[in-house]
Amino acid sequence: MTRIAIDMDDVMADTSYKIVKELNRKLNTTYQIPELLINSDLRNSFFKDYSNNNSFLWEKGFFEDIPVKTGAQEVIKNLQNHYEVFIVSAATEFPHSLKEKIDWLGTYFPFVNWTHIVFCGHKYLIQADYLIDDHEKNLSTFTGTPILFSAPHNLQLTGYERVNNWDEVAKKFL
Amino acid sequence: MTRIAIDMDDVMADTSYKIVKELNRKLNTTYQIPELLINSDLRNSFFKDYSNNNSFLWEKGFFEDIPVKTGAQEVIKNLQNHYEVFIVSAATEFPHSLKEKIDWLGTYFPFVNWTHIVFCGHKYLIQADYLIDDHEKNLSTFTGTPILFSAPHNLQLTGYERVNNWDEVAKKFL
Repeated sequence: MTRIAIDMDDVMADTSYKIVKELNRKLNTTYQIPELLINSDLRNSFFKDYSNNNSFLWEKGFFEDIPVKTGAQEVIKNLQNHYEVFIVSAATEFPHSLKEKIDWLGTYFPFVNWTHIVFCGHKYLIQADYLIDDHEKNLSTFTGTPILFSAPHNLQLTGYERVNNWDEVAKKFL
Repeated sequence: MTRIAIDMDDVMADTSYKIVKELNRKLNTTYQIPELLINSDLRNSFFKDYSNNNSFLWEKGFFEDIPVKTGAQEVIKNLQNHYEVFIVSAATEFPHSLKEKIDWLGTYFPFVNWTHIVFCGHKYLIQADYLIDDHEKNLSTFTGTPILFSAPHNLQLTGYERVNNWDEVAKKFL
């Protein structure tokens, strides 16, 4: 059975939404995702602020209340009827995220069994036919077919098949 | 670089020691590992008791204070000089174990980077040259060379290259 590995942050979970919210709270800024998507100067300033102020990623609670991306639940449930689906998240960098991520999956994706969840660092040891991910470092070292899921930080990235949302994932795979 | 995946429970950590202790506490029994290793009737009775009374595996705290197996620290540190070492633990079945296992690794194996830690369910999607593990279900589906690490529950298992302790791992790989 064809195996699809699916990333969590900014693919299943709207992690950018939470990051923008936390950064605005921390720096008293007013970044908004729709503006960031169309204004590359604003986006550069945002990513500079973010790389200097991202300690909240290591704090307890950050990963527990991230919104689900629209369509992710129904499309992943449907993919399971045709593919072997693994959730593969680079979570070991953030020790508190581990329990929060498995609880989050239990809440929003109860149909994903613990046998098919992977929390790792490097993803290049994952054996699958497809990897749907938003980070080039994961896609470029993947041994199967990489699929780039659009996120604010990868809008300029070329050289990968791109899906912009879960409708486009459904269109490709279902 | 040759890649070695190493299991945690009953390979790096003396999980059987903790299981025997918890089971004795729970059932008021007096099982002891040295006796279990030489007496197969006693072992059968122990594993029957264990399979009916293992809810402590899901309790908070079970995985946080498991003793390190003798030699594991120095041999793994040394293996890192010659191989790409990944720690691969089937931990997602036990949600509380995730944080406890990463903290345990931080305490006893601080030289293992988060990039090289994998917490998963099924291990058959792990791409490595060797897997050192105590469970047949992980070894039989592994796509590289499986190495069986002796544990009370696998003493009768044949068909795999077996190592009995970390000295034997060192002898094979170093």
